[in-house]
Amino acid sequence: MKIIVIGAQGDIGRAASAELAARHEVIKAGRTSGDIRVDITDRASIDEMYRKTGNVDAVVSAVGDVHFGPLAELTEDQFMLGLTHKVMGQVNVVLAGLNTLNDGGSFTLTSGVLDRDPIRQATGAATANGALGGFVKGASIEMPKGLRINVVSPGLLDVSVPRYGSFFHGHEPVSSKRVGLAYAKSVEGALTGQVIIVE
Amino acid sequence: MKIIVIGAQGDIGRAASAELAARHEVIKAGRTSGDIRVDITDRASIDEMYRKTGNVDAVVSAVGDVHFGPLAELTEDQFMLGLTHKVMGQVNVVLAGLNTLNDGGSFTLTSGVLDRDPIRQATGAATANGALGGFVKGASIEMPKGLRINVVSPGLLDVSVPRYGSFFHGHEPVSSKRVGLAYAKSVEGALTGQVIIVE
Repeated sequence: MKIIVIGAQGDIGRAASAELAARHEVIKAGRTSGDIRVDITDRASIDEMYRKTGNVDAVVSAVGDVHFGPLAELTEDQFMLGLTHKVMGQVNVVLAGLNTLNDGGSFTLTSGVLDRDPIRQATGAATANGALGGFVKGASIEMPKGLRINVVSPGLLDVSVPRYGSFFHGHEPVSSKRVGLAYAKSVEGALTGQVIIVE
Repeated sequence: MKIIVIGAQGDIGRAASAELAARHEVIKAGRTSGDIRVDITDRASIDEMYRKTGNVDAVVSAVGDVHFGPLAELTEDQFMLGLTHKVMGQVNVVLAGLNTLNDGGSFTLTSGVLDRDPIRQATGAATANGALGGFVKGASIEMPKGLRINVVSPGLLDVSVPRYGSFFHGHEPVSSKRVGLAYAKSVEGALTGQVIIVE
């Protein structure tokens, strides 16, 4: 298979790429690095990415910004970041790619643990994650050409602990290997409309 | 209790108001009708609503627009409607109301069935519903003053069948009475961070 991994240099993108590259051609895309540069907040940039890759069999998206901050201090702009970037950005990857994916291909998006096991200052992330779960459930029954769509929802990755562990006390980190397997399950399996939890 | 019901003239708002008004003072709010007019897409309008009501014990929000249309034809603006209106609008009702609710008060938002039992042309709704589930889960652990927050997720109401039934073939309608009970459970009970499903 020919697979685009967006956000391939992030902790999650690396885990997905490592697992998938063992058996497939992986095209790495990212905002500031990779084989192709793409800004998922800009539909034209996503369209350009697909023009460069041509038809592919799968797209993995492991990107999406959210704002972290105390609930009572959140501004509308801060709250909307997760909805415009992590949600709408990843949704645009799907909407823009419907014609570029080969029949039977798949989209795999990325959410995270915070809508089922919340931490403080993370309502923006919890909201975006829940939204993505709803999106893949709804979109899965309308996908053309036998396309599938899932979202992987990993806990805090082991490799992310040095940077983010202090926000996640008590959370058991998940191995990058297991996170990579979840993307393989989505891309190489037959599931659709699922939130694939790794915890 | 003194309770604001936003969207009190809608099918769901009527169900909530009917149940709660039997035991409490209900202030009906709405975009075009009610004791107080409020536009939840406008933070200033929400702030003005709370200035008019003064302190209250509970807020029920039963409002939120989404766009319905085939997945493959969705524009970004159409998709964003659910995120800016149904999600951000209801979230702003919460953020703006944190200081106005009395200690131990509650917010009850409204989502719907489409993120767990999807229909065609409803990815916008599925996404918004999922987002609201994530929001209340995340927000519940950060609420000040012992405030609680839940979201009621009803199936298609019996009274809504004449207008929307043709989109929901095979869905068993739920009675308005049972939907009203769900709001009473949220407002008068002790749950928090829950998606209260009525189906």
